[in-house]
Amino acid sequence: MTGELAKLPDIEPSLVQVTKTDSPKQVPPPSSLVFGHTFTDHMLTVPWQMLEGWGTPKIQPFSNLSLPPSATVFHYAHCLFEGLKAYRDTNGKVTLFRPDMNMKRMNNTAHRVAMPGFNGDAMVELMKQLVRLDKHWIPDQPGYSLYIRPTMIGTQPALGIAPPKEVLLFVICSPVGPYYPQGFKPVALYGTTEYVRAAPGGIGAYKLGANYAAGVAAQKAAAAKGYVQNLWLHGPDHHITEVGTMNAFVVFKQADGTTELVTPPLDGMILPGVTRDSVLTLAKEHAAGHINVPELTNKLVVSERPVTMGEVKEAARKGNLVEFFGTGTAAVISPVDRIGYLGEDVQIPTGPDGMGPVSRPLWKHLTGIQTGAIPHPWAVEV
Amino acid sequence: MTGELAKLPDIEPSLVQVTKTDSPKQVPPPSSLVFGHTFTDHMLTVPWQMLEGWGTPKIQPFSNLSLPPSATVFHYAHCLFEGLKAYRDTNGKVTLFRPDMNMKRMNNTAHRVAMPGFNGDAMVELMKQLVRLDKHWIPDQPGYSLYIRPTMIGTQPALGIAPPKEVLLFVICSPVGPYYPQGFKPVALYGTTEYVRAAPGGIGAYKLGANYAAGVAAQKAAAAKGYVQNLWLHGPDHHITEVGTMNAFVVFKQADGTTELVTPPLDGMILPGVTRDSVLTLAKEHAAGHINVPELTNKLVVSERPVTMGEVKEAARKGNLVEFFGTGTAAVISPVDRIGYLGEDVQIPTGPDGMGPVSRPLWKHLTGIQTGAIPHPWAVEV
Repeated sequence: MTGELAKLPDIEPSLVQVTKTDSPKQVPPPSSLVFGHTFTDHMLTVPWQMLEGWGTPKIQPFSNLSLPPSATVFHYAHCLFEGLKAYRDTNGKVTLFRPDMNMKRMNNTAHRVAMPGFNGDAMVELMKQLVRLDKHWIPDQPGYSLYIRPTMIGTQPALGIAPPKEVLLFVICSPVGPYYPQGFKPVALYGTTEYVRAAPGGIGAYKLGANYAAGVAAQKAAAAKGYVQNLWLHGPDHHITEVGTMNAFVVFKQADGTTELVTPPLDGMILPGVTRDSVLTLAKEHAAGHINVPELTNKLVVSERPVTMGEVKEAARKGNLVEFFGTGTAAVISPVDRIGYLGEDVQIPTGPDGMGPVSRPLWKHLTGIQTGAIPHPWAVEV
Repeated sequence: MTGELAKLPDIEPSLVQVTKTDSPKQVPPPSSLVFGHTFTDHMLTVPWQMLEGWGTPKIQPFSNLSLPPSATVFHYAHCLFEGLKAYRDTNGKVTLFRPDMNMKRMNNTAHRVAMPGFNGDAMVELMKQLVRLDKHWIPDQPGYSLYIRPTMIGTQPALGIAPPKEVLLFVICSPVGPYYPQGFKPVALYGTTEYVRAAPGGIGAYKLGANYAAGVAAQKAAAAKGYVQNLWLHGPDHHITEVGTMNAFVVFKQADGTTELVTPPLDGMILPGVTRDSVLTLAKEHAAGHINVPELTNKLVVSERPVTMGEVKEAARKGNLVEFFGTGTAAVISPVDRIGYLGEDVQIPTGPDGMGPVSRPLWKHLTGIQTGAIPHPWAVEV
């Protein structure tokens, strides 16, 4: 935020106005849930105006937004979002997973499109209050959680390309089931060389709506070719950047007997994923001997470095490719068993359970932390 | 559109339902108009559903849209638009300028983000009907017009990144004044090397909202450095691509005595502007001797070719730089008098009226066609 705006009111949780719904919805049976189709009884809204700063936060019944057809968001894509989850453990305790990371990234994203920043801690407080009100929506079954979607849109009712003078920040919540209800199912990727997701100096490192509309064509083209998702490659050397809307990880067997876990560095084209950071952190702490991730090799090397499809293909040919997987909030870890690349398929090993020797222990440890089975400061009690 | 969707209903003008407003607004005095802030009494809406195709077109009072907070457009930037103008001549005749071009581009843009295509001629018919109803909003003064904004948004009420299954196409209209009410005022540009607008394989050639949110930061940075707008450069050679949200034109004096009018080619990173195409077409027809654009040199060469900032800078140094201007629907032609580039300013010649020897006659001829003073098939009677 610029100096003159810094003096205007920030988001203030103590001012929140809570209006509970008169007609609570029936919570649907967990087995009926489809990702992102069911929403809880309440939502959080906080308006912002350029000359007045952040206004009164409201927790109110989930309801339609009424906006003029001239509102910024309908024309110039001033929209950005976050995704995080609340988990309920077997004792009924509800936690959010690393919400500070999401609020930090949301501020960075807003800054990239000249939208207002805000106090992330204040927003976490308000989200906790929203989740407490609707916590009976979190299904009481393993693998289920409440997906929380903070969103910021430009609401200025005038055309003209400029930073929006009016903004709405809102949060909606959706109960979701396990991404792989029948166990892990590795996916086949299509290596996209026809489209790019991001470029240096662009918006690839930000969770802007603009990245997602632009990505659907590549996803659709991959599906038409019989693949589940696309793999974004960049530049003449076909650097691996992201898997659909997930971060990408590759595991190589090295000549010295070590196992290398690789993900592309945050070079301005990669979304700084919270799951990416969590996987990296756990793997690095394990490799350094600070923690023990059960069943994970002790000969682990963790690298944030550029990696090309050529390197992956060559490792597959030589039998040195151990794993390939995506990471993200929705699936946590999504194993890959095949990549269509320049007319042929590169085969990726997967274990009988669909996972591999590095992703399996990391997934177990990370989901253990998320669900409360393994105590960790990343799980923040609501 | 794909084969299976082609069988579903397209937009059908004969089905339009017209609901006139009960409370027409006072038409404001032309001098009070600010671009994009005032809208006419009516709007056009046409809904689409994946399994049902295009629904009933409605001309209805201008009013808010009511959408669930989970609607696609708020999250994944499924929004795209067009901009065209209706002019009223001194006899009261109202014309649209090349509306077929806008509808063709809108279809191309929709296709890029897996949104539905439609019959462009049908939409032109409906827009004519809307403009006829609100034509008293077009100010009866030279330089004024009605800016028409067709917009398409994803309205599916569910999260999940995929082609939206529900869409709304709407059209709103805003009376606008001349872009330069006190005569042409050349602008100073900042040559942006920190951000990119587009990349090969990206979305730069499409009128997607996503390009505009992403561009605001560069515009803001240019303003902070004391420039009016930014100039988008691409690649290590700093190829000229666009001027803010306009197409870019450069004019060089050549050794053989000819004058070269240059604009970058449609290489997938350049928006195919209707004003760009109109300027090119008139200039080419004049150069070929098919038409006479009064006061324009007969020694004109028209080029769609790559042009770098290095070439512009060198031409300025040698005294061979004649002009630099942007083209777009809002300003038609916007002359440039200075470009900040890598720490120094490249000076661009401009005439006493702010224009130059090529842009002035082209602007006169083009606006003559747009306003009806010069009869031409590009002006389509409403």
